[in-house]
Amino acid sequence: MLNEDRLFPLESRSRGIARALYDKVRHLPIVSPHGHTDPKWYALNEPFPDPAQLFVTPDHYVFRMLCSQGIALTDLGVPRVDGGPTEEDGRKIWRLFARNYHLFRGTPSRLWLDHSFEAVFGLRERLSAKTADHFYDHISECLGKPEFRPRALFERFNIEVIATTESALDDLRWHDMIRRSGWKGRVVTAYRPDSVVDPEFENFRENIERFGELAGTDATSWHGYLEAHRIRRAFFKNYGATSSDHGHATARTENLSEAEAASLFAKALAGRCSAEEADAFRGHMLTEMARMSLEDGLVLQIHPGSWRNHSVEVLRRHGRDKGFDIPTRTDYVRALKPLLDAVGMRPELTVIAFTLDETSYSRELAPLAGAYPALKLGPAWWFFDSAEGMRRYRELTTETAGFYNTVGFNDDTRAFCSIPARHDVARRVDCAYLATLVADGRLDEDEAGEVAIDLAYRLAKQAYRL
Amino acid sequence: MLNEDRLFPLESRSRGIARALYDKVRHLPIVSPHGHTDPKWYALNEPFPDPAQLFVTPDHYVFRMLCSQGIALTDLGVPRVDGGPTEEDGRKIWRLFARNYHLFRGTPSRLWLDHSFEAVFGLRERLSAKTADHFYDHISECLGKPEFRPRALFERFNIEVIATTESALDDLRWHDMIRRSGWKGRVVTAYRPDSVVDPEFENFRENIERFGELAGTDATSWHGYLEAHRIRRAFFKNYGATSSDHGHATARTENLSEAEAASLFAKALAGRCSAEEADAFRGHMLTEMARMSLEDGLVLQIHPGSWRNHSVEVLRRHGRDKGFDIPTRTDYVRALKPLLDAVGMRPELTVIAFTLDETSYSRELAPLAGAYPALKLGPAWWFFDSAEGMRRYRELTTETAGFYNTVGFNDDTRAFCSIPARHDVARRVDCAYLATLVADGRLDEDEAGEVAIDLAYRLAKQAYRL
Amino acid sequence: MLNEDRLFPLESRSRGIARALYDKVRHLPIVSPHGHTDPKWYALNEPFPDPAQLFVTPDHYVFRMLCSQGIALTDLGVPRVDGGPTEEDGRKIWRLFARNYHLFRGTPSRLWLDHSFEAVFGLRERLSAKTADHFYDHISECLGKPEFRPRALFERFNIEVIATTESALDDLRWHDMIRRSGWKGRVVTAYRPDSVVDPEFENFRENIERFGELAGTDATSWHGYLEAHRIRRAFFKNYGATSSDHGHATARTENLSEAEAASLFAKALAGRCSAEEADAFRGHMLTEMARMSLEDGLVLQIHPGSWRNHSVEVLRRHGRDKGFDIPTRTDYVRALKPLLDAVGMRPELTVIAFTLDETSYSRELAPLAGAYPALKLGPAWWFFDSAEGMRRYRELTTETAGFYNTVGFNDDTRAFCSIPARHDVARRVDCAYLATLVADGRLDEDEAGEVAIDLAYRLAKQAYRL
Repeated sequence: MLNEDRLFPLESRSRGIARALYDKVRHLPIVSPHGHTDPKWYALNEPFPDPAQLFVTPDHYVFRMLCSQGIALTDLGVPRVDGGPTEEDGRKIWRLFARNYHLFRGTPSRLWLDHSFEAVFGLRERLSAKTADHFYDHISECLGKPEFRPRALFERFNIEVIATTESALDDLRWHDMIRRSGWKGRVVTAYRPDSVVDPEFENFRENIERFGELAGTDATSWHGYLEAHRIRRAFFKNYGATSSDHGHATARTENLSEAEAASLFAKALAGRCSAEEADAFRGHMLTEMARMSLEDGLVLQIHPGSWRNHSVEVLRRHGRDKGFDIPTRTDYVRALKPLLDAVGMRPELTVIAFTLDETSYSRELAPLAGAYPALKLGPAWWFFDSAEGMRRYRELTTETAGFYNTVGFNDDTRAFCSIPARHDVARRVDCAYLATLVADGRLDEDEAGEVAIDLAYRLAKQAYRL
Repeated sequence: MLNEDRLFPLESRSRGIARALYDKVRHLPIVSPHGHTDPKWYALNEPFPDPAQLFVTPDHYVFRMLCSQGIALTDLGVPRVDGGPTEEDGRKIWRLFARNYHLFRGTPSRLWLDHSFEAVFGLRERLSAKTADHFYDHISECLGKPEFRPRALFERFNIEVIATTESALDDLRWHDMIRRSGWKGRVVTAYRPDSVVDPEFENFRENIERFGELAGTDATSWHGYLEAHRIRRAFFKNYGATSSDHGHATARTENLSEAEAASLFAKALAGRCSAEEADAFRGHMLTEMARMSLEDGLVLQIHPGSWRNHSVEVLRRHGRDKGFDIPTRTDYVRALKPLLDAVGMRPELTVIAFTLDETSYSRELAPLAGAYPALKLGPAWWFFDSAEGMRRYRELTTETAGFYNTVGFNDDTRAFCSIPARHDVARRVDCAYLATLVADGRLDEDEAGEVAIDLAYRLAKQAYRL
Repeated sequence: MLNEDRLFPLESRSRGIARALYDKVRHLPIVSPHGHTDPKWYALNEPFPDPAQLFVTPDHYVFRMLCSQGIALTDLGVPRVDGGPTEEDGRKIWRLFARNYHLFRGTPSRLWLDHSFEAVFGLRERLSAKTADHFYDHISECLGKPEFRPRALFERFNIEVIATTESALDDLRWHDMIRRSGWKGRVVTAYRPDSVVDPEFENFRENIERFGELAGTDATSWHGYLEAHRIRRAFFKNYGATSSDHGHATARTENLSEAEAASLFAKALAGRCSAEEADAFRGHMLTEMARMSLEDGLVLQIHPGSWRNHSVEVLRRHGRDKGFDIPTRTDYVRALKPLLDAVGMRPELTVIAFTLDETSYSRELAPLAGAYPALKLGPAWWFFDSAEGMRRYRELTTETAGFYNTVGFNDDTRAFCSIPARHDVARRVDCAYLATLVADGRLDEDEAGEVAIDLAYRLAKQAYRL
C-alpha cells in the first residue's frame, strides 16, 4: 500500500537524488527529544488495549476531524468530565472510524495511520467500512502478542532515545521503575513546570506548596521558590532530563528586577494577580529558567501560540486536550527581547522556539535564530508536522537561518505507533527538499548527504544534548 | 489559443493523472452557490450591450488594473457620482483596453478573458491593439444574436443552479418574473441584510422602517426586528434562497444578552451608537442569524476582511465597488468564539467562513473548521480566486481540515461570461493538486477521482443545500 | 563549480523555456537603482583590502550567521564601539570563515559567494578549511592587480548605472570627485533624509542646524525647513539623484495640517516630542516628501518594518547595522492611507513600497499597487532577496498587481563583488517563474520574453527614471 517513493519530488533526476539521500538516513536510529508517550508503558510493558483505544480514542488529530463532520465525541469513546456514558465497544468505535476514513484524505494523519497499519501490523489494504472488521481483528490479535508490547515495539522502532514530558510535580515513579527494571531502552524525562509557573493554573497555591514539599524547601518565598526549581530540575536531570518545556499562550518574556518578581510571586500566591500580572510573571519565569539552564545545562523549549480549549462546550463536557486548541497570531520580536537581552548572546545556552504561526518563520524566527547564538528553531510543529508544513518550514527558514540553527525533528506525539511514520515523513520531506537544492544547483550532493544525516539524527542529539 | 493542459503539473506522470481526473469533471454542470449576476438579465433576457460594457466598464478586476497604470476611470466609462461626462464610445474604451492588455499578463483576469473570448465568442487570436477592432466587431455581432442572450448562455454554460445576492430590502421582482416566465433555468436568491444589520449603513433607520413595511411588522422594536428577519428570510427562501451572506469589515461575533442587544438596537435606531457599539451590534447579529439558521436551514456565509472604498477620491468621484477594496489582517480565533460557543457544535448548522487574509488558512481557519461541526471553509476568494491562490488554499488547508470541511467552488462574480472560465480554473487547479498527491503517494487514484467530483460539484450542492 | 542551469525549473520543457528566456537577459547591462556601495571606491579607485575585509568583516549577512553559531564578532574583525581589540589578521578571519562555510548551505549568501569566487576571481573549488589558504592567497593577489580595482570591476560587471545612498547631510564630495575625474561610469546618489526627518535621531537639532547651513537657509522654521529639503533635493539631483529613500520602523504616513506639522516640528526641535508625536512627524514627512516629488520628480522609496539593533548587547559593543535588525509585522492598508489619499491617484508620482513582512504581498501591497496609480512594489528585499524569497514574491504579487506595478530588481548591497551574482539570481528566478507560466499555459512565450527583459532591465530604468 505504501508507495516506496512517497513525498519525493516528481521530476526524475531530483527524485533519484532524493532516493539516494533517503537511503543514507532511512535506517538511522530514532532520536525523539520531545514527546508525550506515557512512561508507564515502558515501565509496566503491558499490552496495549484494543485498536480503538490505540488509534482513535486518545488521538486528538483523529477524533477532532471526525467531530468536525458531526460525529459525537462520546460515540468515539472520548471520556466525559461528568463520568457519564460514552461508547465502550471498541469494535463499534472502530467501524465508525473506518466508515469515515475518507475524511483523512490528504492529511498527515492518513499518512501516519497507513504507515502504522502496514509497517507495524502488516496490513496492506486500505481501511474502509468493508475492511474495518478485518483490521480490528488483526490488530487485536497482534496486540496480544509479546512482540507488540511497548518495549518490543520500542526496540523494533529502533528508538535510540525518547523523551517523555512530566509535570514539575510528578514523582517520576515510572521513570524510576524503568531504570530499576534493568531494561536497556533509553527513556528520559523533561521538566514541564507550567503548573508551578503559571499563576492562573488551577490550584496554583496548592501546587507551590506541593512543589516545596517535593523539593524539601519552602517554595512560598521567592528564593525558596527558585531553589525548589533548582532542586526539581536536578531531580529530573537525574532521570535523564536534558530539557525543560514551556507551553505558554504567547511568547512573552520579561526580565524583571528581583523585587518586582518577588512581589508578583507573592501576589500570585495570594491569588491576587491580574491577567496582565500573571502574564508578566510567566514571561519572567522563562528568563529565570534560562538563567538556570546556564547553570545546569537543560535546554529551554518555548511552545507558544495555542489558544487552549477554544470551545467552552467541549471543555465542559470532555475536559482539556480534546482537539480544540487553535493556533493564534504570535509575535516573537518584541516578546523574546527581554530574554534575549538577558542571555541571548550566550553560546553555551540553547533556547528552542516553536511556532504555530507560520508567518513568523521567515519574518521573525529565522532572522532571530540566524543572529542570536542561544536561539534555535524547533521543527514544524503540531498542525505543521506534515508534508506541506515541513516543506514550507524549510523553504521559509533555510535561506536566513540555514540548517544549523534548526534542531532536527521532534515527533511530539502520544501516538506510539505513529513514531516511525512521523520520523519517516520528516526524513523524506527533508531529503526531497535537499534533492531540489542539489538538482537546481544550490547545493552539492556530498553536502546534501551530510545535511540529510544532520537533520535526521545528529542535530537532535546535539541540540538536546542527548 | 487556450492550452488544453493549462494549469496542470508539468511533470509528465502527474500531468497524465491530472488530465484523467479533469476528464471526470470538465463536463459536470456548474453549481454556482454564491455570486452577483443580475437577476434582471435572466428575467428580461435582453441582449448584453457592447463589448466594453460587457468586459471592461463593470469589471473592477479589469478597470482597477488599468487605473493602477495611470488610465483615468472616466476614460473607461466608469460612471461618475456627479453624473458628469465619461467616455461613452464603447469602441474607444475597447481600444484603450486592448492596447493595455499586456498589463494582465500573469493575472487570473487574463485567463478568464482569454477563455471567454475563445470559448464563448470563438476568438482564437490574442487581444492587442492590432486585433482590437476585430474583437469589438465580432463580439458586437454575436451579442445581437439570440444564442448570446442571457438565458441561452446560461444553458450553454451548463449551469445547474446559480445564486444571486439581494438586499434584505429587495422586492425580488426579477426573481418573481423569472419564476412566472416558465423558463426552466434555476436562479435562486440569497439573503444579504447588511443594510438592516449595520448601524453605520447609510439611512439605517429608514432602512429598518422599510424593512418592517416589507415584512408587515413593526421592525423598530427588538422583537419586531427579529421577527422581520424571520419573515424576510422566509420570503427569500420562497425564491429559492438557501443562504444568507454577511460582508462585515471584521469577523467579529458577539453573543449578547437580550437586554444588551435590544438596548444597542434602540441606540442604533436613534443614531447614537459609537463605532464600537455598531461593531458589537453587527457581531451580535451574526449570532442571531446563526440561531435563525438553526430554525430555517439557511446557510450562513461570513465574508470579512475588506477595507471598503480605501481611496476617498475614488469614492467621492465614482462611488462604491470601484476596485479600491483592500484586504486587511483578519483574526478568526477570538472573533468567531462567541458565535461558535453559542452554536458551533451543532452539526445541523452550516456557517461558511471566507477570508482575504491567507495567513489565517493554516493558522486559524483550517484548525477551526477541522474541529467545529458547524464551521466550513469557503473557497479561495476574490484576489485569491486564481491559480496560485487556489493552490495555496489547498496546500494550506487540506492537511488540517481535509477536503470535506471545504464547500467546493464559488465564482462570486458579476462577469457573466467569466463563469465557465472561473469554474474551469478551479477544476483544473484542484485536479492538479490531487494529481500531485497521487503521484507522490499521498492518495490513491480512485480516491482522487471521487474527491475531484466532490470539489467540482457535490460539495457545493451539499454545503449550500442546493 | 556553478551549475549553468541553477535555479531553473527541474522539469525539462520548462527548463528549456527558462534557458531561452535567460539567454535574452543574461548579458543585459546592470541597472542598480538602489544600493549601498561606497562612492569613495569609485572616486579614489584604490585597491580593495584583503579578502576578509572584502567578504567577511563588512557583510552583515555573513557575520550574523557565524555569530549565530557562537563565533564572537570580535574574532571576525567586526569593530568595537569602544575601540578595543578585534582580530586584525585577515588570514585568521578567513580561515575561521572557511571552516564554517557549511553554515551557509542553502542560503543566498552561499550562492552569491560561490558566484563571486568563480565569476570574479576564477576560483572553481568549494571554499573549505582545506582550500582556505589557496582562496586567500589567490584573492589577495588579484586585489593587487589593476583589473580588480573598483572602476575596472564596475566596467567588467557591465553596470550601466548604480545608485548609492547618502544622508541629506552629506556633502557628496565623492560624487563630485567622480564627476570631475572624467571617468565615464555612471554613479548617482539618492536622498536619504532620516537624520533630519526623525525627531528621535541622535542630535536631531544639530542635524537641522547643519541642514540649514548646507542649504543656505534657516531650517529651524517650518517653512525654512521645507525649503531646505527642496534645496538639498535639488543639490542631490544635480549629482544624478532620481530618488529619495526612507527607512522608517513602520509604514505610517500622516497628512497633517500645516499648523499641526509646524507645531510638531517646533516640539521636535525642542526635544519635546513624545514617541507618538515623533512617529506622527516622520509619517507626515513622507507625505511632504511625496508632494516635493510631484514638483521635482524624485521617486519616493519607503523601506519599513525593521526593528533595528534588536540586541542591546551587540548595539552597545559593536554599534548599528551588525546583523541584528529583525523584521516585524507591518501594516500598509491603514498606514499608507493618508499619503495615498493626498497624492496616490497622481500618475506622475512614483512611490515604491518595500516590505519585510511577506504576508503583506498578497493581502495588502499587491491590491494597493494594483489600484493606486502612484504606488509601485519594490522587489523582494533583504532577507527575501533570495531564490525562494523572489519566487514567493512573484507568486504572491503577480496575480493581483501584474508585472507592471513592480519595478525590477534592486541589489541593495554594500558587497560590491556580489552585485553580478545578485542580479543573476534575480534574472534566473524571474525566468524560471515566467517559464512555468508559459509551460502551464498562462502566458505565451513571446510575451514572456518581453517581460523577462522588462524585469531584468527596463522596469528599473523606467520606475527610477534612470
